Amino acid sequence: MNIPASVEVIEVGMRDGLQMEYQFIDTGTKVELINGLMAAGVRHIEATSFVSPRAVPQLADAAEVLAGAHRPAGSRFAVLAPNLKGVERAIAAKADEIVVFLSCSESHNEKNLNRSIDRSLEDISAIAQRVKDVDIIKKGAIACAFGCPFEGDIDLDTLMRIAGNFHALGFRALTLGDTTGMATPRLVTRTVLALRDAFPEMKLTLHFHNTRGIGLVNVVAGLNAGIDSYESSLGGLGGCPFAPGASGNICTEDLVYLLNEMGIQTGIDLGKLIDVASRMESILGRSLPGQVMKAGPRLRLHGYEDAACAMG
Amino acid sequence: MNIPASVEVIEVGMRDGLQMEYQFIDTGTKVELINGLMAAGVRHIEATSFVSPRAVPQLADAAEVLAGAHRPAGSRFAVLAPNLKGVERAIAAKADEIVVFLSCSESHNEKNLNRSIDRSLEDISAIAQRVKDVDIIKKGAIACAFGCPFEGDIDLDTLMRIAGNFHALGFRALTLGDTTGMATPRLVTRTVLALRDAFPEMKLTLHFHNTRGIGLVNVVAGLNAGIDSYESSLGGLGGCPFAPGASGNICTEDLVYLLNEMGIQTGIDLGKLIDVASRMESILGRSLPGQVMKAGPRLRLHGYEDAACAMG
Repeated sequence: MNIPASVEVIEVGMRDGLQMEYQFIDTGTKVELINGLMAAGVRHIEATSFVSPRAVPQLADAAEVLAGAHRPAGSRFAVLAPNLKGVERAIAAKADEIVVFLSCSESHNEKNLNRSIDRSLEDISAIAQRVKDVDIIKKGAIACAFGCPFEGDIDLDTLMRIAGNFHALGFRALTLGDTTGMATPRLVTRTVLALRDAFPEMKLTLHFHNTRGIGLVNVVAGLNAGIDSYESSLGGLGGCPFAPGASGNICTEDLVYLLNEMGIQTGIDLGKLIDVASRMESILGRSLPGQVMKAGPRLRLHGYEDAACAMG
Repeated sequence: MNIPASVEVIEVGMRDGLQMEYQFIDTGTKVELINGLMAAGVRHIEATSFVSPRAVPQLADAAEVLAGAHRPAGSRFAVLAPNLKGVERAIAAKADEIVVFLSCSESHNEKNLNRSIDRSLEDISAIAQRVKDVDIIKKGAIACAFGCPFEGDIDLDTLMRIAGNFHALGFRALTLGDTTGMATPRLVTRTVLALRDAFPEMKLTLHFHNTRGIGLVNVVAGLNAGIDSYESSLGGLGGCPFAPGASGNICTEDLVYLLNEMGIQTGIDLGKLIDVASRMESILGRSLPGQVMKAGPRLRLHGYEDAACAMG
């Protein structure tokens, strides 16, 4: 076992979580949440998406959010950039990192991006060409990396071909997205080992959903394979469009709690993080899936006098 | 790593779950649920508790439930028996196994059982004497085995002393209860190794709660330590009295799903199990925490035409 001593937790709630919220959250509130995350020690965040404002009105204020947020030294503000136009906007808004994505399932890519995988690869090639001389980090993201809700198991060869394409275009960071929660410990191990073998200098990030309750188990599989970068969402914000009522992204506080208890450093203050998650709950006016925000860290003790026990 | 090839999943929802439900569920419905579990392949169940009907009215029909349920060959119907009177009732009702419990935290034991640990150990000694010549399996259960909501970390020496006491009284089965969800992978490994070292012939069962979101991660820690027996609750029924809104027991379907995907045999049909969990939801009239019951197994595919994708 080769468990890393420290792990980078990338907060994606402001993008992957908020994009599913229909009620617009004003820019000042978004900035306040991001600043709270920074104050809690988060240093890598997917802060917004330069997607078409018509497609996702919630993120229409992407440039204003980047301009308004406190961006401490050493922080990395990533943004999703689905096309060349989004990339231009991301550069103009001084994002530190663009995340360029496609799916490794033809049917999911068609549904999500309205084009074939090959066509997406051409688009990504044009994006790589555009940012060649720009001081911005390029990160690739592969959706449905552990399964597709339409096709089931995905072909490892397709995944490797897409990863190879990113690599050939100069990308040295790659996220594997478990878009609908189909990852399992064995798939994680197999996929990570194959990618690391083929592209040892590619920095891998794992993005799990808790749709089937085993998101954090998959993190542990990733840790055992030596992966030190994970994406998660504040409070577990963000659902799964294929499973009404099911969880989406794994929850950042629960992830940080687990890493703390495993003795793995994150640089994040769990108490402050829980405060931001609670603020998110009050903004949205509903309970989020996160567990640690409800129960508290394990040594937050309870008063004896007013406690009630269930028998056993 | 010494992961077992097959695992015993002990269903505790009918006891640990239902005891927190104030609305009485009629005996016929309880029997129907148990029969559904048996039809799904569950063979070891904590079916009810011979606790005082005044303390837990929901389980006042313990004897009728045992008499009414289909008990297939090879099944093991366990019952909680908090005192000598409960043991008498369990014997009369022909339970296969009695579970006798105490807490390894003085303050929790006082709150839950209204007596000291030493006094509980005396009671258990009297129970052991009573069942010495009775054909019934004796199982011990230690609550708060991984932490106490009042005292925080528990003393491993106290846990070992209690386990030694059960051992000396002839108990060869012991459950470690994570009563308020304070277990962590490191505590699981440490505790299991210490107990197995001291009492190699004691069969250990792990009972985790998902109060802080890492219940199934703790199962994996147990599997890595070679433990092949876990307790869980249908749909994740049962909360945590110390954390309103937080989860209680780990969910049986999610556990079985994980074990399936790890290639570990359980003898349980996941589809049939989900049907029983859905029936439990409809009986209770509310959503339960289980995830797989909402999302379905990973290869239950979705129709392409009517699906909507979130961007990315």
